[in-house]
Amino acid sequence: MALIYDKIAVIGIGLVGASVAIAAKHKKLAGHVASYDINADARDEARSLSIGDEICDEIESCVEEADLVILSVPVGAMADVMIKIAGSLKQGCVITDTGSTKSSVIKDVKPHVPAGVHFIPSHPMAGTEFSGPSAGFARLFEGRFWLIIPDGAAPEQLVPFTQFLQGLGATTEEMDAKYHDRVVAITSHLPHLIAYTIVGTAVDLESDLKNDVIRFSASGFRDFTRIAASDPVMWRDVFMNNDEAVLEMLQRFNEDLSYLQRAIRWKEADKLFDLFTRTRDIRKSIIEAGQD
Amino acid sequence: MALIYDKIAVIGIGLVGASVAIAAKHKKLAGHVASYDINADARDEARSLSIGDEICDEIESCVEEADLVILSVPVGAMADVMIKIAGSLKQGCVITDTGSTKSSVIKDVKPHVPAGVHFIPSHPMAGTEFSGPSAGFARLFEGRFWLIIPDGAAPEQLVPFTQFLQGLGATTEEMDAKYHDRVVAITSHLPHLIAYTIVGTAVDLESDLKNDVIRFSASGFRDFTRIAASDPVMWRDVFMNNDEAVLEMLQRFNEDLSYLQRAIRWKEADKLFDLFTRTRDIRKSIIEAGQD
Repeated sequence: MALIYDKIAVIGIGLVGASVAIAAKHKKLAGHVASYDINADARDEARSLSIGDEICDEIESCVEEADLVILSVPVGAMADVMIKIAGSLKQGCVITDTGSTKSSVIKDVKPHVPAGVHFIPSHPMAGTEFSGPSAGFARLFEGRFWLIIPDGAAPEQLVPFTQFLQGLGATTEEMDAKYHDRVVAITSHLPHLIAYTIVGTAVDLESDLKNDVIRFSASGFRDFTRIAASDPVMWRDVFMNNDEAVLEMLQRFNEDLSYLQRAIRWKEADKLFDLFTRTRDIRKSIIEAGQD
Repeated sequence: MALIYDKIAVIGIGLVGASVAIAAKHKKLAGHVASYDINADARDEARSLSIGDEICDEIESCVEEADLVILSVPVGAMADVMIKIAGSLKQGCVITDTGSTKSSVIKDVKPHVPAGVHFIPSHPMAGTEFSGPSAGFARLFEGRFWLIIPDGAAPEQLVPFTQFLQGLGATTEEMDAKYHDRVVAITSHLPHLIAYTIVGTAVDLESDLKNDVIRFSASGFRDFTRIAASDPVMWRDVFMNNDEAVLEMLQRFNEDLSYLQRAIRWKEADKLFDLFTRTRDIRKSIIEAGQD
């Protein structure tokens, strides 16, 4: 891999930020990898894990002279971070973010981007249920999609940025912000909301039953509890900031669930069988698309 | 492992039936392992895979002289199978079933069990999204719970049957049928219904969006598609036969989902954060219980 940036700055050393810093250094995509986290414990943890070249105690010095700044903080914190770093950015540098919602981040961040600085929003479709610096690993992005919202970016900035993401192992794809938000609403946000809900329903069961639900947790529920163990701040912010697309998909989901509920109540076996057969095909398509 | 039964008969060579036959032979729990499936292709496949000692073309000869008969067919087919084999059973033999619903199977099967034959319903909490004889493997039950509904069984039958299941690698636990049905409604049946629903919602999206949902399917949705690829006949029968407990849990789930939907619409961030924090603890409990 060729060096792409002399210095990159990662703001927010969570699962994604730590993985970017580790992978960028490991693959020699940047001459210097600086990182910052608002949480002092996270900085200490990142230092003890030797993530990147430098863990900064000040956000301003972290971004100084950086050619690429990656904001990997919860989407609700993007505006504050942008305001904080605006005065320290190098002319010509590229800012990206790794937030799961794109329309809201553009709305929040763009007004604070100084002239001569290029904001290219993006979203890595990669994650695990773990969080914090120690969750990061170099191969997180390998073979995963990293969506880019070009938003009018010029090739001088877009091409090296794309090479950087591909250097991390990701497959890049350009997309419009509003369309992105609908795609992730159904593939990621709604599944998380539902997993949180059903695990919450189990938490509220009478005590004996709740304990046996934990003891005998079967495939299905176990998968849901893994999803529902994801970072609460990140996911609260996602639902606050992609509310429109999530509520649209939730409305469709509710209609479909009511249809099945009615079919169960009235013993309409064929309706269930038809759906259960159709959903099998989607799984085949996903396996064929190499996404599992 | 000591030999427990001279002959066992497995009816229905799907994921569970095939795995029982393979494991029982491998662990020498039975002198002779006979299997039967109503589907001739499944029998041919089982023969070519050398599952157990014998694949029978007639259900009656399969169960003749068997000391243990395991009904691993969809729960909607249990009554028919029981009626078919009733006249060929050896006096003193034990019948079990591996259905995911217990009240309905007891209601369907018990009236047809001949005098001198002992019916002990059970349910292995083990599975994958694959089905058919080729999905079976010897270690499917290792470390998984296998729930037994003693339903008045005497120790002479219950003790060796329990040893057999433990010999397959399972952890056994006795439980009442009605309570069983509520536990699996929340841990298994409702998660499957919801996974089927959300994948169905995605299937019905406009064509461009649907294709991108498949291409960019993220963690969360991918897990759901795996669950929603499970055997359609088996799951149709589950919902037709555990309707009461499933509808009860679905009612609770709907209330909880409406609460979150309202919180998103009214931007009540704290309500989401509180739930997302509570659900994390359940995950910890499950990991501590050794179920993942």
